[in-house]
Amino acid sequence: MKSLAQNYRSQCPLSAALEMIGDKWSLLIVRDMCMGKSRYGDFQNSPEGIPSNILANRLRQLEENGIIKKQPYQTNPPRYEYLLSPKGADLLPVLQQLGLWAHRYVPGSMPPPDDFMAAKPEELLAGK
Amino acid sequence: MKSLAQNYRSQCPLSAALEMIGDKWSLLIVRDMCMGKSRYGDFQNSPEGIPSNILANRLRQLEENGIIKKQPYQTNPPRYEYLLSPKGADLLPVLQQLGLWAHRYVPGSMPPPDDFMAAKPEELLAGK
Repeated sequence: MKSLAQNYRSQCPLSAALEMIGDKWSLLIVRDMCMGKSRYGDFQNSPEGIPSNILANRLRQLEENGIIKKQPYQTNPPRYEYLLSPKGADLLPVLQQLGLWAHRYVPGSMPPPDDFMAAKPEELLAGK
Repeated sequence: MKSLAQNYRSQCPLSAALEMIGDKWSLLIVRDMCMGKSRYGDFQNSPEGIPSNILANRLRQLEENGIIKKQPYQTNPPRYEYLLSPKGADLLPVLQQLGLWAHRYVPGSMPPPDDFMAAKPEELLAGK
């Protein structure tokens, strides 16, 4: 994890947050994990159609930033799944607010699902 | 404003939101406006040091997406300032959650200022 003495742009927490998840895809992967998806193919099959090279890059960045954990679910051949860390699960309130905002202002967008809005970060962690 | 029949990636409100503000800079400009900044030079002087070409691009995108309004404050020579629309002001709860999240997880980041956390969207609008 970077510390501010290294190379964040400023001490502003918003700036640091956007350095980690400020792009068009990272929070959609977190959204998918909040909804129970955990495997590479699951993320690829989401309706936005994330390109495979971008998915691989974002998964690596999310892992480097401590937002997700990669762990094997099969050894021969090795296969991995991705799970939210506590840091990642704590992005849920951000996603809930952002979903409400966009539903209010984007004509035709669906409302955030009830179970998504009712979820709590601690319920998203493995071994809950 | 785009409608979903045009070219959003999916009906998911999060996806639509990230198409509008999913980058490293747009929400920092909205943050600056929440803190009372309104002019091009103000945004340039923020500690993150946004490059001028990116600032001009993001201001145009934010205006096209109805998040900010551009209005003249001087006519000869013409000079403009940028103000939050109701849609833009309603991003405040997202920024508040994101600021709390990053402060919790980024060592050394400053806490979101008390007045920022206590603000309400309607207080951010011109003529409040």
